[in-house]
Amino acid sequence: MGNMLRDLSGKFSAATRALRPSEVREILALTENRKVLSLAGGLPGPEVFPKEDLARIASRVVEELGDSALQYSPTLGVMPFREAVADFVRSKGVKVLSDDRVAVTTGSQEAIYLLAMTLINPKDAIIVESPTYLAALNVFRYYGAEFVSVPLDENGMKTELLEDKIKEAKSKGLNVKLVYTVATCHNPTGVIMPDDRRKELLEVASKYDLLVIEDDPYSFFVFDEVPFTPLKTIDSEGRVIYLGTFSKILAPGLRLGYMVADRQITRMVELAKQMVDLHSSTLSQYIALYALKEGVVERTIQKARVVYREKRDIMVESLEKYMPEGSHWFKPRGGLFAFIYLPDGVDTSDMLPMAIERGVAYVPGRSFFSDGSGVNAMRINFSYLPPDKLREGIRLIAETAKDYMKSKGK
Amino acid sequence: MGNMLRDLSGKFSAATRALRPSEVREILALTENRKVLSLAGGLPGPEVFPKEDLARIASRVVEELGDSALQYSPTLGVMPFREAVADFVRSKGVKVLSDDRVAVTTGSQEAIYLLAMTLINPKDAIIVESPTYLAALNVFRYYGAEFVSVPLDENGMKTELLEDKIKEAKSKGLNVKLVYTVATCHNPTGVIMPDDRRKELLEVASKYDLLVIEDDPYSFFVFDEVPFTPLKTIDSEGRVIYLGTFSKILAPGLRLGYMVADRQITRMVELAKQMVDLHSSTLSQYIALYALKEGVVERTIQKARVVYREKRDIMVESLEKYMPEGSHWFKPRGGLFAFIYLPDGVDTSDMLPMAIERGVAYVPGRSFFSDGSGVNAMRINFSYLPPDKLREGIRLIAETAKDYMKSKGK
Repeated sequence: MGNMLRDLSGKFSAATRALRPSEVREILALTENRKVLSLAGGLPGPEVFPKEDLARIASRVVEELGDSALQYSPTLGVMPFREAVADFVRSKGVKVLSDDRVAVTTGSQEAIYLLAMTLINPKDAIIVESPTYLAALNVFRYYGAEFVSVPLDENGMKTELLEDKIKEAKSKGLNVKLVYTVATCHNPTGVIMPDDRRKELLEVASKYDLLVIEDDPYSFFVFDEVPFTPLKTIDSEGRVIYLGTFSKILAPGLRLGYMVADRQITRMVELAKQMVDLHSSTLSQYIALYALKEGVVERTIQKARVVYREKRDIMVESLEKYMPEGSHWFKPRGGLFAFIYLPDGVDTSDMLPMAIERGVAYVPGRSFFSDGSGVNAMRINFSYLPPDKLREGIRLIAETAKDYMKSKGK
Repeated sequence: MGNMLRDLSGKFSAATRALRPSEVREILALTENRKVLSLAGGLPGPEVFPKEDLARIASRVVEELGDSALQYSPTLGVMPFREAVADFVRSKGVKVLSDDRVAVTTGSQEAIYLLAMTLINPKDAIIVESPTYLAALNVFRYYGAEFVSVPLDENGMKTELLEDKIKEAKSKGLNVKLVYTVATCHNPTGVIMPDDRRKELLEVASKYDLLVIEDDPYSFFVFDEVPFTPLKTIDSEGRVIYLGTFSKILAPGLRLGYMVADRQITRMVELAKQMVDLHSSTLSQYIALYALKEGVVERTIQKARVVYREKRDIMVESLEKYMPEGSHWFKPRGGLFAFIYLPDGVDTSDMLPMAIERGVAYVPGRSFFSDGSGVNAMRINFSYLPPDKLREGIRLIAETAKDYMKSKGK
């Protein structure tokens, strides 16, 4: 029996008009069950998953601690896990202030969502790197934010432009409220912001009373010797909201992110999270807790760093070998991604169906800019595919690009 | 070092003014680490958790299927799990239409949240039982909904009042958009709506073009022989959005709920969920998939039904024995809760601190009404505590009530 209510569009809320499909999620869906080499997602290489350790830990946690691990748990997270997260970030040089609290979230995506929900009013302006992480852009945009885009170079956000940008935004009547930055192993470019710029960023934040969201999923994967200090550590005013995740250092399937922030912000996030999902998986939290305690997280980081560095090198080598003349990119100092600019005239969104047809996927660059630039750019991921497939994927992208250019008479 | 930004309240979005603490979550936090017998939450009895089975399954899933089970996964859920959920609900007599799709959510709380986000405009009116599930009320209220409260009796919502209520709401200029109902083993009263009322409800929904959210966490735990048909099964117009959860039939710590609804609604929920948390725990989904396949879910349901019926009987016996004269309640036909009315003059919110002091917690009744009634009511849970503690908890509540009444000169 079919449905009689054929068109439900009249039932949807006005807010759904601001819902835009996530480019990455849609490409993932498109390539699912197809023989496509995906350089689109931000997936860890499965070879770094500590499967044996996690199998043992999962079994033990359920059997011995099941009364707690299988039960409902507090909205901000299981207390021993929150404490272990605080210890962990401290051990990585992230300063935790006395007024800070840890919130466990369903991936760091949820932290970004909850922060947008609790901080953003329409017409609030958010300072972002240009390009920046597309899913953050989507969430902030959904909540009506405007963006102040600050260009970046191989040292990250050009902080010397910040004040002028802020003044310009204010002159347009915007309320400049916060900075969202992936300062370390930037997504999508892989660059790292040095400390002088970090200090300048925080000085400006202090001067203009801005909050700073330091989204830090990748700082464990720095491949070249680049000294940097977490913004959270430089900050002594409680302005920095620090976001981390277990997705890259343990397993994304657990859906565990965390936020370390002033307790007023954490409390507001708690109230929002009570409505959104009550709490994140208790079982995942116990598994991650024991993975931290037993050194599994640390070993996974060490292993992943080696594996990803090797893949990064293979990627750079393949880019140099295959990409059409006139292409350029930042060599990623860390992280999981590279951002490639193809020659002018290439529209990577337009080219994507051809690439998928040929058996390879990437994310078009436009999605990473708040202003529609990046038409000829693309993000590729190098952590997921095994080396030979990675090489092959890049070769296929390059071939597609050359054919595309030919077809356009370039 | 302390924070210098002492007051962040100016940073919060206007929407946070609508954030109200969840009474249940706050009471849970209040009673955490205290020797309080909690009848407040909706926690399964840990003795029904299939710990050995889940330990074995968790270990096997991570070890053998870790490349998938530890990885990112599609927003609406892992395909074999979505299919298994469809088979499962069908096996329970829930009709799945050809245009329906399954969405996996982070607990059914998230399904309610995503539905509110995608369906509710300010001033939309939602028809609810009075009383009804408080967390749904909170979410709908946050999105600006108005409520049309329909009283219930031992047969659930008094559907004969529906049309008049709708007309009244329309005359006030409200857009009556949907019905939210816990028709089977109602929360908080435990009553079950018979089929004649279900049919009337759907006729009215059809006449006034309403969507119907059938929130169904408890229908596996019917203790008395009461015949009923899921609203989803009676519906042939694709109006019913069916919500279920693994929290009560496997383990809440997995945070797995599901929605079966028309694909237009599922698609909108997918776009919203991409922003909120990308997807729910892949590991939890694989664990639940194998728990379904191997009959662990079915065995857990059978066991829980026996355990909870026994506890229900102990609760009713204890209520009859201890509660002050003039108290009354519905005998729950199923589910995890009973809703108790104390004599007039008792304010259960006012009395709660005394009860916690005495070592027992419940949820004040007011939270379950959209209109502030229920001052002398309370919800108690009977699934969580072992029988002797359950008896003792009810005795303590009764004593507190008697003292409270004495102190007020009743």
